[in-house]
Amino acid sequence: MAHGYVSDKERYLARLKRIEGQTRGIHRMIDEDVYCIDVLTQISAITSALENVALALLDDHINHCVRHAAEHGGKDEIDEKLNEVNAAITRLVKS
Amino acid sequence: MAHGYVSDKERYLARLKRIEGQTRGIHRMIDEDVYCIDVLTQISAITSALENVALALLDDHINHCVRHAAEHGGKDEIDEKLNEVNAAITRLVKS
Amino acid sequence: MAHGYVSDKERYLARLKRIEGQTRGIHRMIDEDVYCIDVLTQISAITSALENVALALLDDHINHCVRHAAEHGGKDEIDEKLNEVNAAITRLVKS
Amino acid sequence: MAHGYVSDKERYLARLKRIEGQTRGIHRMIDEDVYCIDVLTQISAITSALENVALALLDDHINHCVRHAAEHGGKDEIDEKLNEVNAAITRLVKS
Repeated sequence: MAHGYVSDKERYLARLKRIEGQTRGIHRMIDEDVYCIDVLTQISAITSALENVALALLDDHINHCVRHAAEHGGKDEIDEKLNEVNAAITRLVKS
Repeated sequence: MAHGYVSDKERYLARLKRIEGQTRGIHRMIDEDVYCIDVLTQISAITSALENVALALLDDHINHCVRHAAEHGGKDEIDEKLNEVNAAITRLVKS
Repeated sequence: MAHGYVSDKERYLARLKRIEGQTRGIHRMIDEDVYCIDVLTQISAITSALENVALALLDDHINHCVRHAAEHGGKDEIDEKLNEVNAAITRLVKS
Repeated sequence: MAHGYVSDKERYLARLKRIEGQTRGIHRMIDEDVYCIDVLTQISAITSALENVALALLDDHINHCVRHAAEHGGKDEIDEKLNEVNAAITRLVKS
């Protein structure tokens, strides 16, 4: 079964390409001795962008993979999916 | 006056190069239809790595730029530096 | 149907009673002019404790309410439950 | 020397009294078997409120205690104050 995000793949790839470019941008800022506060501002922007990608992926995962398992899977499969989701949420909240 | 991080520049550049590579890795994971949970795990790792870079930069900034201003600068310069730091902390906490 | 947390209610009530006491403790610290850094340390402890309660509640909710809806509910009920969960996760991550 | 927040003490005490009441409110919600999602919404509101109190305290602390040390203190006192601030920022970001 295709993962939840596959239907939106191009958008995810574009967002990640942009984040990769922003990360390279920070490398350049440090290399060019840009003022610390400006570098920090850029890092906060990337952290938020990554967080939003993660929330969108989690949303897709819950709405497709978890949902499919709950509707069609056996007890073990559902247990596994739900444990995975809860662990992913904890990592996201704690990171 | 050189920024606080300049004395540690090579280490920052190496850390950022690694994060850039990790971000490219996520792009590849999505491109190769890797399971959502594994992608989410990788994003949490990058968010934490970025957060640690930001905390280190902030530490350097406070210990050098802010400290220098407080020791040698006039009232206006100190006000400006402290306002900048507080705004950077808020962005970091809220991102 | 009883909510997911009901089976663990006493433990939640005890944890929340402790957090309430800690919050009252901060009020007292400010009232008694305790050093700022010590107050900040206590606030970080409470924020983490609240976050852990939220993660536990979310875990219970997903494992009971969401699971029950997915196994026995119609499309609309499942949609509603999943949208609620995703909104709760976003609030938790962004707070 | 009075701490940074002392000039704003009444406002801090009022905010903390409100947060304490909100925490008691969550206890009551659990006690009365309120729906999980509604409890989670309230916890996110309290976490944000606590975070804002912490940011305000940190702002006051930096603008008064740290500033005073940097302007009038010796090297050791400044080192101590800056290390404290950086540790407090890390706790706040990581909690």
